[in-house]
This record gives sequence, C-alpha cells and structure tokens, in this order.
Amino acid sequence: MATSLHINRGRLLERLRRFNEIGALPGGGNCRLALTDEDRAGRTLLVTWMRELGLDVTIDVIGNIIGMRQGREHAEPVMFGSHIDTVATGGRYDGLYGVLAGLELCESLNDVGATTRRSLALVAFTNEEGSRFSPYAMGSLVYVGGLAVDDAYAISGIDGTTVGGELHRIGYAGTAPPGWLKPHAYVELHIEQGPVLEDQGFVIGAVEGVQGLSWTEVAITGRAAHAGTTPMPMRRDAGYAAGEIAVFVRRLARDMGGAQVGTVGRIMLEPNLVNVMAERAVLTVDLRNTDEKLLQAAETRLAAFLDELAAREQLAISARSLARFEPVPFSTAIMSLTETKAQELGLSCRRLPSGAGHDAQMMARLCPAGMIFVPSAGGLSHNVREHTEPAHLQAGADVLLRVVLGLSD
Amino acid sequence: MATSLHINRGRLLERLRRFNEIGALPGGGNCRLALTDEDRAGRTLLVTWMRELGLDVTIDVIGNIIGMRQGREHAEPVMFGSHIDTVATGGRYDGLYGVLAGLELCESLNDVGATTRRSLALVAFTNEEGSRFSPYAMGSLVYVGGLAVDDAYAISGIDGTTVGGELHRIGYAGTAPPGWLKPHAYVELHIEQGPVLEDQGFVIGAVEGVQGLSWTEVAITGRAAHAGTTPMPMRRDAGYAAGEIAVFVRRLARDMGGAQVGTVGRIMLEPNLVNVMAERAVLTVDLRNTDEKLLQAAETRLAAFLDELAAREQLAISARSLARFEPVPFSTAIMSLTETKAQELGLSCRRLPSGAGHDAQMMARLCPAGMIFVPSAGGLSHNVREHTEPAHLQAGADVLLRVVLGLSD
Repeated sequence: MATSLHINRGRLLERLRRFNEIGALPGGGNCRLALTDEDRAGRTLLVTWMRELGLDVTIDVIGNIIGMRQGREHAEPVMFGSHIDTVATGGRYDGLYGVLAGLELCESLNDVGATTRRSLALVAFTNEEGSRFSPYAMGSLVYVGGLAVDDAYAISGIDGTTVGGELHRIGYAGTAPPGWLKPHAYVELHIEQGPVLEDQGFVIGAVEGVQGLSWTEVAITGRAAHAGTTPMPMRRDAGYAAGEIAVFVRRLARDMGGAQVGTVGRIMLEPNLVNVMAERAVLTVDLRNTDEKLLQAAETRLAAFLDELAAREQLAISARSLARFEPVPFSTAIMSLTETKAQELGLSCRRLPSGAGHDAQMMARLCPAGMIFVPSAGGLSHNVREHTEPAHLQAGADVLLRVVLGLSD
Repeated sequence: MATSLHINRGRLLERLRRFNEIGALPGGGNCRLALTDEDRAGRTLLVTWMRELGLDVTIDVIGNIIGMRQGREHAEPVMFGSHIDTVATGGRYDGLYGVLAGLELCESLNDVGATTRRSLALVAFTNEEGSRFSPYAMGSLVYVGGLAVDDAYAISGIDGTTVGGELHRIGYAGTAPPGWLKPHAYVELHIEQGPVLEDQGFVIGAVEGVQGLSWTEVAITGRAAHAGTTPMPMRRDAGYAAGEIAVFVRRLARDMGGAQVGTVGRIMLEPNLVNVMAERAVLTVDLRNTDEKLLQAAETRLAAFLDELAAREQLAISARSLARFEPVPFSTAIMSLTETKAQELGLSCRRLPSGAGHDAQMMARLCPAGMIFVPSAGGLSHNVREHTEPAHLQAGADVLLRVVLGLSD
C-alpha cells in the first residue's frame, strides 16, 4: 500500500461530531454510561455505519461488537478498536476516537479499493469504563476468558441494575461466544488521558504497557447520633472516618512517590444530613502503579491504616476488591512498528506507559497487543473539557492505518 | 389542682405507638421528613386527635398547628408542644413526645373536668429538624418573626422542592399570620438527645438554654480528571479536599475542647465515580458551642482553613451559612418551677444546657421560654435506636402538666 494513503480528516471529525450528539453534556462532553439508553443509541449508530462500509457485524454474548472486513486469505485477522461507553462526565474522544478512527481506516481502504492479506476486525468492547458496572474493561475481560459470562451478567451496578438485565434490555446480548475470533494482533488507538505527550511536545506515543490497578470499596459502620448533643470522645462517626481515608490515600501516594497514584473518587454517607453523624460511609480507593511489588505495598499500607482507624474510632470497617489487575507489558514488535510508521509520516514519537487501564491490556492475554497514543490537551480526561487537536486526531489515525496494514500483510 | 393528678401512661404510650406507625423504619425508628407525605399523615392524625379532645385547631401560614383549650379568663395563653417531623433516620420520641405529652395533658384535664385560668395552647411546629429544608426550627422562627414567610416559602430542599410548594402540596399552608397568638410562656418537653441525665442518674432536666449553632455549606470546585493518568502534584481534587475538611473539623473540636462540637454529616461528590477525581464536592459543617465568643472563634478557624486549603490545592472553595443561632438562655422562673414540680413528684432533677437546637430557643424571643428534658438511653438520638423508658416518659409528662398548671393559674 502506498505511504501516500491518509485517512480523511473531515470525515473522521464529522463522525465524531455526529456520534457525540448521543449523550451530549453541557460544556462539550458526553455521558454514555455502559448499557444505558445512550450506550444503546451509540451501538446502533456504530452498527449502521459498519454495515454501510460493508463490514460483517457480529455481536457476542457480552455485547462486544465486531465488524469484519474480508481479507484475501483465510488467516487470523488483525483486530483494532476500543470502546464507545464513557464515564458520567466523559469527554468526546476517550474510547470513541479509537473506534471511529478504525471505521475511517476501513472507509479509506474502501475508497482506494485496497484489500489486505489478513481480514481486519474493528471492535467496540462493552463497558470499558466500569463506571456503572465494575470491573472496567469488562467486555474485553470476558472476551479473553478472564471472567465468565454468567458471572458478568450477575454483576450489580451503582443503580441496582445488573449487567445481564441491562444488556438484554438494550438488545445487545448477542450469541457469539467469548473469544469467538482469535486475532493475529490487537492494536488500540487512544488519547493519552494524561499530560506527558503534550508537555514534552510529542504527537505519537508508542505505549509500553498498562500500569497495575487495585480498586477497593471500603464500607464503614459507625453510629448515627445527634451532632449537637454527642460529646466528641463518644463519637463513632463514619463520615469523619471517610475523610481520614481520603487524606490517607493522598499522603500514601505522595509518600511512595514515583508512579504511585491514589484516588478516593466516590464517597456516600448515610443518612447524609447536616445534623446527624453518619452511621455508614461507603467509599472507593483507586491505587495504581507500574510496579506490581510497589502496588502490593500500597495495598498493604491501606489495609493497615483501615485496621488502625477501625480500632481507634470504634468502627466496623470492611474492604472488598472491586478490580485488581497487575501491570501489563505490550508487544515490543507493535511498539517498534508504531515508531517506524510515525517516523515514515514525519511524526514525533516516544515510548511511554499508560496511566489508565484499557481493553488492550486484556487482549494482551490472547495475542500480541499494543496501543498508540495521541496527546490530551492539558492532560485532561474523564472530563467534559477533554480535547485533542484535529491534526493530532488525524496523525494517530494515519499511524493506526499504517500499523494495521503492516500487521495484516 | 390536686398534686395527685397524673397523666395516663398507657394512653400516652398507645398514642406514641399509633403515631409512629407513620413513616416507620426497620429497627424501630421513623422517617417523617418535614412536608413529605409522612409528615402530612402525622399532621392529619394530630389534628384529628386534637379535635377529639375539643381543642380549637388553627393552622398558620407556615403550617404550625395550634390546638387551643379554653381558659376561664381572656388572658395570654400558656403554650407548650414541640414538633412531629423527624430526621431521615429519626427515633420515636424526638419532638413527637413533647406534642403527644401535651395532648395527654389536655385529656388528663378533660378527664377530671378541670379548667385553667389561662387558655392552654398545644403547638406542633413545622420543620424543626431542618433535614430536608434548612434552617432548622423553621416554623417557630417564622412564628416569632425571625424569617419572613415568603423567604421561607422560597427555600429549596435537598430534593429540589421548595417549602412553599410542599406546604401547599400537602395542604397545610394555613391562613393565620405568624405570631397570631402571643403566649404568656412557652414550655417544651423533650428527650435530652444526649447522655448527661442517664450517666448521672437524673430523671428530669431543667434546661438552662440552648447552645449556639453555626451551619455552613462548603462547596469545592476542583477539576475532574482521570484517576490513573493524572500525576499527584497536578491534581485539583475536590473529594480529597472534602476529606481534609472532615478531618479538620474533628481536630478543631478536639483542640478547642470544652463544649465545642463539630460534625461533617453530609458529603456529596460529583461525578462520584471510582476512577475520576471529583470535580465538585458539597459538604456541611455543624459547629456548636454554649459560648458565643468561642463559637465565633471556631467559625474563624474554619474559614481560615478553607482559605489555606483552597490556595494549597488550587481549588475554588465557597462557604455559605445555612443557619446561625447564638446561644439562648431560658427563663430562670421556668427552670425553678420545673425543679419545684419535679421535687413535689419525688423526681431527681438537675439543670443542664441543651446540646441540640429546639423550637423553644426561637420562642424565647417572644415570651419566657423553658424546656424539660427526660433521659435518652445511651444518649442516642437522630437514630432509629433512640429510646426513653416508659417511666421516664410518664415522669416528664407529669412535670410538664404541673409546670403548665403553675404557669396558667
């Protein structure tokens, strides 16, 4: 294939614009939480577009959508894509960009009548974000056999619904079994969601791997009591304890330094009233590190702190893991290919780890996997103001096109 | 009136039992948040009972319910009562006990055909708790002219409704103007909601006054960002800041010691997801002290901490007062009368301040006001396990009966 081939930037931007009318939020972002009506609307639009381009669409039991573009030979296909669900305050590009760039890649090949030796498989995985149903990357995890379908179906969401119930409700519980298509390789194009590329002036990131992640839900039970009449030493205040944990997690990450990050993003108190000490608090702790041993150390320190806090404040504190993934290294061959193709296009490129989890880390269990990053303005993501320059969107899609062609021939 | 007159314990307990079928919670408590359907049901039952006893019922513009028992002379009446609304995890006695003991007092006088020189006015004030609509003691505050009716109507609740809208919806926006009845004195019988009487073995508390209270709503705006990709030093995390404030408030109260208490009972994060730093946090701070100067000192220290936190974490932090009441001393005459009547009944009695706010503190602006406390088991209140022994419920109602007779003759 000629190196002069480029994707059509205007068409990519127009598809992004049209798709992002679904679940649009004030300020520019989107809310398409997994398996909601907005997710369904997005799926239906994606399937329509896939079929318009002649892709053969298959939906599997966990709702992953795969569109196949036939190759010349009967060989394992090259798979690429990402996800179309978002967090509640999601941006326009997280996930969606990789899927629509894949669609644009297929249309660009159609435009010039190009065929590839291997088939191409564009995928949109179910529930990558994990905001409504934990764990994240659920569709790809099920795809690679890391989570049984029935277990996934039984998972309850933050609104009390179940994955199985919602998947059937929106009509996207397909029949293909998990992993029905074994890829030759998997490549995912994604915005960086962090500040590194922009800060250092690079346009393309060849991703080395995904940091390990540990999500813990902490439930604290104290005693509801009157805020005016209960002497301070007699308090068993779950709300105060939630505050202590939020402060501890910040201190832990700062103390450990390096790649360690820690976040308390969710806190819910009961009864959550101004003049009543909280009887109960439920909060989440998100710990991540590129080094498995250090991540374990962070988990150990958190557990010790919870024990100490429970004893000191006479509280019952329980913790359960919502998700746990070790750091995942990506294929060095795909990293090198990405660097070569970026260079051919005259695009600056550096290797970097991913701070966020991605479907590619699951797919790495099944086949060589890699990721291509483009810059996120201000490092912002999971935010309605998430932005990537159109030139960078094109650059990433052009690199993806070349990497996919390199893998498929 | 003979000192042999006692209220009917069985009848009081039975009314408490029947009334508490409304808004009953698992575990024994009640949820009758102000101006909800449950509050309406309670009001309707109370009005029915008042009319059965021959009381002349008047409802004012803020929904306060007053039942009048005619006296022999045309003179300012003796008013007594409390409230029937609860917090979301309320107990069986907070407020309701004072109202139903007042009802029982009227029926006990009916039983013996007794008349009083002054009329008796049994009152149930609207929205004492302030859990749904702030400030607390709203009905009595409006009654004494401390809050304009239209301003009260415009107040939005935690569920986005307004006081005016809900009051009209439940059919309890009456026509009598605030303060339409000027009392000779106001007496409120209430559970202590704290541990002092029980700990020290007293049955009756002659309340010296109500501690001052300062409720602040703190709103924090940071920046939503990805929990995995955002380096710790670049975070502007509203959830972490909420935790810091909860910890600060505890430390503040411990450092100041004495009567100072402080509580963060309400925290809400947005978007409140495991893998997203909170863009926004809204929380409440409840500070109380019996000494106005010390309460002001606590407020000043909180404000300074919020400024320091905003600067350090690059957050926008705003604070607004939800309620502010100075400490209120009660009538020494009513305190003495309470002690005398307890003594006549052979009941142990001590003076003590109230840690909680009450309608009586508002009524003190209009007339001599006082309160009578009975013990709360374990000091528990604003809790479904709130409990007071039947013997203590009777003791308090007997003292109320005698104090009211003493004031009305």
